[in-house]
Amino acid sequence: MHHEMMSDKWHEECGVFGIFGHDKAAELTYYGLYALQHRGQESAGIATVEGRKMHHHKGMGLVSEVFNEDVLETLKGNAAIGHVRYSTTGDSSVANAQPLTFGFQRGNMALAHNGNLTNAYQIHGRLERQGSIFQTTSDTEVVAHLIAKSGLPTLEENVKESLSVVKGAYAFLILSDDKLLAMRDPHGLRPMALGQFEGAYVVASETCAFDTIGAEYIRDVEPGEMLIIDKDGLRSERFATASRKALCTFEYIYFARPDSDIDGFNVHSVRKKMGKLLAKEHPVEADVVIGVPESSISAAIGYAEETGIPYEIGLIKNKYIGRTFIQPSQELRERGVKLKLSAVRKIVEGKRVVLIDDSIVRGTTSRRIVEMLRDAGATEVHLRISSPPVTHGCYYGIDTSAREELIAATKSVGEIREYIGADTLSYLSEEAMLRAFGVEDFSNHKYCNACFTGQYPTEIYEDLEKHMLER
Amino acid sequence: MHHEMMSDKWHEECGVFGIFGHDKAAELTYYGLYALQHRGQESAGIATVEGRKMHHHKGMGLVSEVFNEDVLETLKGNAAIGHVRYSTTGDSSVANAQPLTFGFQRGNMALAHNGNLTNAYQIHGRLERQGSIFQTTSDTEVVAHLIAKSGLPTLEENVKESLSVVKGAYAFLILSDDKLLAMRDPHGLRPMALGQFEGAYVVASETCAFDTIGAEYIRDVEPGEMLIIDKDGLRSERFATASRKALCTFEYIYFARPDSDIDGFNVHSVRKKMGKLLAKEHPVEADVVIGVPESSISAAIGYAEETGIPYEIGLIKNKYIGRTFIQPSQELRERGVKLKLSAVRKIVEGKRVVLIDDSIVRGTTSRRIVEMLRDAGATEVHLRISSPPVTHGCYYGIDTSAREELIAATKSVGEIREYIGADTLSYLSEEAMLRAFGVEDFSNHKYCNACFTGQYPTEIYEDLEKHMLER
Amino acid sequence: MHHEMMSDKWHEECGVFGIFGHDKAAELTYYGLYALQHRGQESAGIATVEGRKMHHHKGMGLVSEVFNEDVLETLKGNAAIGHVRYSTTGDSSVANAQPLTFGFQRGNMALAHNGNLTNAYQIHGRLERQGSIFQTTSDTEVVAHLIAKSGLPTLEENVKESLSVVKGAYAFLILSDDKLLAMRDPHGLRPMALGQFEGAYVVASETCAFDTIGAEYIRDVEPGEMLIIDKDGLRSERFATASRKALCTFEYIYFARPDSDIDGFNVHSVRKKMGKLLAKEHPVEADVVIGVPESSISAAIGYAEETGIPYEIGLIKNKYIGRTFIQPSQELRERGVKLKLSAVRKIVEGKRVVLIDDSIVRGTTSRRIVEMLRDAGATEVHLRISSPPVTHGCYYGIDTSAREELIAATKSVGEIREYIGADTLSYLSEEAMLRAFGVEDFSNHKYCNACFTGQYPTEIYEDLEKHMLER
Amino acid sequence: MHHEMMSDKWHEECGVFGIFGHDKAAELTYYGLYALQHRGQESAGIATVEGRKMHHHKGMGLVSEVFNEDVLETLKGNAAIGHVRYSTTGDSSVANAQPLTFGFQRGNMALAHNGNLTNAYQIHGRLERQGSIFQTTSDTEVVAHLIAKSGLPTLEENVKESLSVVKGAYAFLILSDDKLLAMRDPHGLRPMALGQFEGAYVVASETCAFDTIGAEYIRDVEPGEMLIIDKDGLRSERFATASRKALCTFEYIYFARPDSDIDGFNVHSVRKKMGKLLAKEHPVEADVVIGVPESSISAAIGYAEETGIPYEIGLIKNKYIGRTFIQPSQELRERGVKLKLSAVRKIVEGKRVVLIDDSIVRGTTSRRIVEMLRDAGATEVHLRISSPPVTHGCYYGIDTSAREELIAATKSVGEIREYIGADTLSYLSEEAMLRAFGVEDFSNHKYCNACFTGQYPTEIYEDLEKHMLER
Repeated sequence: MHHEMMSDKWHEECGVFGIFGHDKAAELTYYGLYALQHRGQESAGIATVEGRKMHHHKGMGLVSEVFNEDVLETLKGNAAIGHVRYSTTGDSSVANAQPLTFGFQRGNMALAHNGNLTNAYQIHGRLERQGSIFQTTSDTEVVAHLIAKSGLPTLEENVKESLSVVKGAYAFLILSDDKLLAMRDPHGLRPMALGQFEGAYVVASETCAFDTIGAEYIRDVEPGEMLIIDKDGLRSERFATASRKALCTFEYIYFARPDSDIDGFNVHSVRKKMGKLLAKEHPVEADVVIGVPESSISAAIGYAEETGIPYEIGLIKNKYIGRTFIQPSQELRERGVKLKLSAVRKIVEGKRVVLIDDSIVRGTTSRRIVEMLRDAGATEVHLRISSPPVTHGCYYGIDTSAREELIAATKSVGEIREYIGADTLSYLSEEAMLRAFGVEDFSNHKYCNACFTGQYPTEIYEDLEKHMLER
Repeated sequence: MHHEMMSDKWHEECGVFGIFGHDKAAELTYYGLYALQHRGQESAGIATVEGRKMHHHKGMGLVSEVFNEDVLETLKGNAAIGHVRYSTTGDSSVANAQPLTFGFQRGNMALAHNGNLTNAYQIHGRLERQGSIFQTTSDTEVVAHLIAKSGLPTLEENVKESLSVVKGAYAFLILSDDKLLAMRDPHGLRPMALGQFEGAYVVASETCAFDTIGAEYIRDVEPGEMLIIDKDGLRSERFATASRKALCTFEYIYFARPDSDIDGFNVHSVRKKMGKLLAKEHPVEADVVIGVPESSISAAIGYAEETGIPYEIGLIKNKYIGRTFIQPSQELRERGVKLKLSAVRKIVEGKRVVLIDDSIVRGTTSRRIVEMLRDAGATEVHLRISSPPVTHGCYYGIDTSAREELIAATKSVGEIREYIGADTLSYLSEEAMLRAFGVEDFSNHKYCNACFTGQYPTEIYEDLEKHMLER
Repeated sequence: MHHEMMSDKWHEECGVFGIFGHDKAAELTYYGLYALQHRGQESAGIATVEGRKMHHHKGMGLVSEVFNEDVLETLKGNAAIGHVRYSTTGDSSVANAQPLTFGFQRGNMALAHNGNLTNAYQIHGRLERQGSIFQTTSDTEVVAHLIAKSGLPTLEENVKESLSVVKGAYAFLILSDDKLLAMRDPHGLRPMALGQFEGAYVVASETCAFDTIGAEYIRDVEPGEMLIIDKDGLRSERFATASRKALCTFEYIYFARPDSDIDGFNVHSVRKKMGKLLAKEHPVEADVVIGVPESSISAAIGYAEETGIPYEIGLIKNKYIGRTFIQPSQELRERGVKLKLSAVRKIVEGKRVVLIDDSIVRGTTSRRIVEMLRDAGATEVHLRISSPPVTHGCYYGIDTSAREELIAATKSVGEIREYIGADTLSYLSEEAMLRAFGVEDFSNHKYCNACFTGQYPTEIYEDLEKHMLER
Repeated sequence: MHHEMMSDKWHEECGVFGIFGHDKAAELTYYGLYALQHRGQESAGIATVEGRKMHHHKGMGLVSEVFNEDVLETLKGNAAIGHVRYSTTGDSSVANAQPLTFGFQRGNMALAHNGNLTNAYQIHGRLERQGSIFQTTSDTEVVAHLIAKSGLPTLEENVKESLSVVKGAYAFLILSDDKLLAMRDPHGLRPMALGQFEGAYVVASETCAFDTIGAEYIRDVEPGEMLIIDKDGLRSERFATASRKALCTFEYIYFARPDSDIDGFNVHSVRKKMGKLLAKEHPVEADVVIGVPESSISAAIGYAEETGIPYEIGLIKNKYIGRTFIQPSQELRERGVKLKLSAVRKIVEGKRVVLIDDSIVRGTTSRRIVEMLRDAGATEVHLRISSPPVTHGCYYGIDTSAREELIAATKSVGEIREYIGADTLSYLSEEAMLRAFGVEDFSNHKYCNACFTGQYPTEIYEDLEKHMLER
């Protein structure tokens, strides 16, 4: 199993964490980011505010690689925001790492953003024509310019006015000299939750960050809501209302950590329920159920529990692959060197295997896993996918393949099965998936399933895919 | 959950890998070591032979950190041995990393060793009195001296004579200018298997290394056997016979990768069986079964399958902890920061939980996990251990705590339960454990269970614990 | 001799290098910066243009540390500018390293600046009030904003309009998608020369950069001149005229490399002439002449030649002090550990020594050198300074001490002599210094000697020293 | 001027420093090594003794790169030895860096060696045949084996017995658990001096190390002398007497620092005297005298003083070339990029130049410097060498070219002049050189001038050059 395998999943682009009013702000942000590390492993950064001074540090790599104790000590102050980032190819430089920090007329400003603005390219062009200069290709810098240029009298008004012209998906944190602002886009595409720790307010992309630092979960930030946290405490304002809420379904399917709760549902439990519903929709006679580690384990357990077929550990993932790992040459891969996943021969040999995966993107990985299981002696391989076929790309902060690379965009389920080499292949239906998310009225639910249906909750502009702000 | 948690398990000290007769020897060794990374994360090294030249490279850190493509390219030759090492405190320097390499009268020699020699201190002293100089505190250098000093006419005889005076546990690889020798101690305390890849012979501590490179498993190396691999192929000689075979049971319980087969048994399957037997011996009424990741997952699945209680993912392990991670201060830990493990509130809240762990060493970690589960709302926590109480230390290459730190050495099961704070606590019986390893005649089995019984298969010398060769 | 010694000189803040129209643009810039390394050792950077793409890399450290072959290879394109920087305390971060690069309405822009703008703080404030955001504390970013905001139709006009509002000292390089602009401030405070290499034009702070790459010197850039270099070749425009030219005298005294020619004079020759004039003004009976290495060697040779007293190497400078050097503790320094300079006992023992230094800033270093010479057995030490007493700070890009730290600002020559412990002390007169620069009409010369006289060639604003843009 | 220039000098291989009886032993050794850095820039190391524990650290690079404060702090104890090393090609690995440290029957032993043993290959072979194992290719390890194998009752006797069988050049430091031994070979080929610092004894390759830490010079170690320094103070024993003393002349000519005194003479003064004698033997009509920096400056000053021709700085050496510097490609070098040295056009243009260099090895560098001076406008270039023609290689710890590469071994002075392109070329006569060292009786002097005469002071073995212990 080779390198493609590592990238044949969609990637979440970011996780954010913020805290206001705690003397260990930077340290707690470090641990919060560490809990959110699965949302982005390319770069990490923290900005803090100490009186009228802003300190910040960011770098390429894991949280544990970017920061050391000496660096953390320089990040003084009792408010902080942090960011982890997965980057698409091209502009993965430390300049684009976040939080972005700027000086402006009100003092200092740090911004951390999870999501993607769909009209950033257009606004960027307009700002340049008006004389603005840009140091990054990030859409976050566009928002910073808008905020600084707003003539309105308060930072909150500056931000609300700026968000009124941007479109797309965002969970946004802004730290100024005296307050922390947290905004979620009007559709609620990206998650963000509010918690409390020893009197200080904390915000994070996922609740697992709260558990890690021992903070108490209060509630999710509402779509279109701005939280203002300052020395007087917490206030909430609504800056926009959308006719439709649209939380990204892939947060449940793949991105989020199993122990996180998003908008009220525990991720592991949702996945396990998807596995159970998958078993009801697409049962099969078999000897063992195995899941592709790690994101499909919950669904596999659910499938096993529903069917009574034993759940086994039939695929092992090597957890020591790091960024500096030397990938085997094409030649060695063809000779059989497989690094990331290994099939357990004693488990699958002579067995009829149900293989659970959470999604299929290009199909190359699934094909290799099926081949690996057959090489290890599986007599039958029944592939069950715990989500519907992915047929459309995403414009909301996910690093998706081009649409033509999505196997389900161009092939029928039968053709996909043939390409992958499974004995049978079934996907969870859209209705069942939504039911796992608690949906009862299918005509009026609060999820974005554009990647399955092509029905995007916001406008998408023609040239978005082409430009994506890469200069 | 804090730093102690990371160390409150016994640690395997080493993994070895060797290959003879393949033009990609160093590269394949790199991937083999990577598959064995769980056996030692402190240092890694590879030595190769190219004609009469020996190349080697070793360093502190993971395989992926120690080697890069430039380094791998310098490791020319068609034979190689490699080593990964976990070190106890004190002498964890790169000088002690392996393979050790020496020049001697026959040319070059590289040695890689998994295990521990129980009379190394005595032999070391004798050699010094005879005028030998030592560069490391490793017992492996003792063997190198013995080999070089043997007057016998062949390398094989030199090695056999040397092994006749050492005692203890070892899986040993020796690479000379023209052959690869692989030896397992007469009791077979440490595992080692033989395989084949494209005509070349390979040896490794565990079979998962074979699966990773696509090699075919042939058989396990026998206790007391020496394999000689050279340009004429493979020969086997027996250099010793022990009255009793004594494979380390902890290889099955904790150390080995679930996908490895050791001496004929698949590790995951053995662990699952231990979980089933544990359920039979110590059933309990409960709502969910959860395992301590990652080594106890197999047993937890077995326990759930046997009892019909649903298996859930109730504890999440953060996989991004690296060596450079900043541990939280005592103060922050007390305030609730927990890094390595998180309990999933939605899974355990209001539930009666069966918690499966593979072993208890000092009990500190178990205590914290139980507390964490209660904090997350578990109404009852029933701790079930899939092995017997650990009452004695190990002298065979495992980094064990001092005996007085072993909670089961000084406390009864009732006292341990109280310390840990579980509602109930039960251990798997020794008989059931052995039965999971396929033992039928309990008076005559082939396992070392000294850590449960104090019956060591070899002599142990008074001053071993005190000296351990640390100068 | 301890750490103070390393900093008890004024520091040049920058060197710039640019080239347009050569396929090895980045590589030649690397070697050009390396020749200018003495002008700044804290950070280095290069930006190149390749069609409509700009590549850049900068980092902390020496040119040889910041760049490696892989990095140089990414800097494609046939035009480049580079920068080396010495930084004052506080804002010495990589974000402030140059060239600064921006996107703006005309495409890309990179800026490299040697000097200091005296009204940057005021303009920065005005821009912020107008809605600009700033990523650095560099006055260079102020100029970038001004350029982008100018509504005039060409880049040249944008730049000229922007320079019309800034005041102070600058040698400025701006690289856009299709041209290289080089500007020297109207007073010509900082040097910049024009050369040619294989058909391409090159500009550099000092001519030693031309010699290093084998380029031919054409002429110095004129004060108030803008050079426009593009595919059509070289054009010159005058954007300002100053009533008075004012080249920094310290370029000759201390900053520049002895092999550079600045505005027509060779630096070593000027220094040697200063030494000769110093001998004429302040002769003394002595046995040896020694110079403080390295900047005072030329003057010492001149003094020796004029007086006939033998020139000797009586002080040795250790050239291996790097940035990572561990400074001796106060305790060890007091016990006698001296690192940077050593006196040669055999040379000075029993001798009357004339010690030549180029300048005295705080006097601490001179005091230590005199003490060191006496410890080594010198019977008399006559200190001769090859420039006048420094009585005022500099606002033009030099890292000067606060005025109260300048020993000559508060003490008479007699008091300084006493503090330093020399037997006699004499400074070169201002007239003699100017004569060494070729000045004949002292009322109308083209040098800035504000640090000796307090007569600054431009306005200085009250709050400049206080703010210096450090946020 | 390209890379060859950097290597077209002979290289000293090592410098050693030791101290016994001071609580800042490691720190003082760090500063001592830093003063000796010119003797070796490839690796550095320090070993200390604290009771019965030995601490050590060594690495590739400059002293300032290998050590940091954390490392220095681990080097506890009140006795230390240190080593800097220049390595020939091939075996430049950290394993060969010194001090070498070993455990043996008497406890710990650290060895630091400057020089080369001419019979190490033969002894190494004999030891291997007797069963010894070797970890390095260093001849120092050979001595360690000999010491450990000596059956005599004291360490001093072990060492003396061992030195009785080795031949060649050495300044040797050995640190054991309770004493520091310093030995200089019977001919005194390599220098070593004894000093005192706050009651502690110090030894060093050159006296400049004493000046740096503020230690007082006592005397040079005698050829064939062993100093024993322990808690009872200093004792001296003579372990050998040679009929002839033979200090390496190149220490004065090129290796040593100008401020060091070796065997009673100051290096700068000797060099200056060589320049004066050179002027007497080979005067020439010229306008300026310039020296090749840095080793030929003293001789150039002497030549100028004797002839009355002005000494000028006509060649500038860039001091910022570090190990990570990117060398210009052949193509760029041919186009004129010259990095290490620059000619100062204003100094040499239209002038008749006397160029002083200390020696010619292969002639390539001299050729380039002459060409560079002519390119800069010199009308005549008269090359004067302040030592005799080098016609033979060195076996005593100097990295010399093969004899066939020595231009003077195969060409007459006239042919060399032609190759180099100078107008005239003269070498200092051997008599004059010796006179500069204070020799009056030429038939009975105490210097090794084998590289000028081929008369080696010790036996040289046939296979020495071939083997040099490189395996």
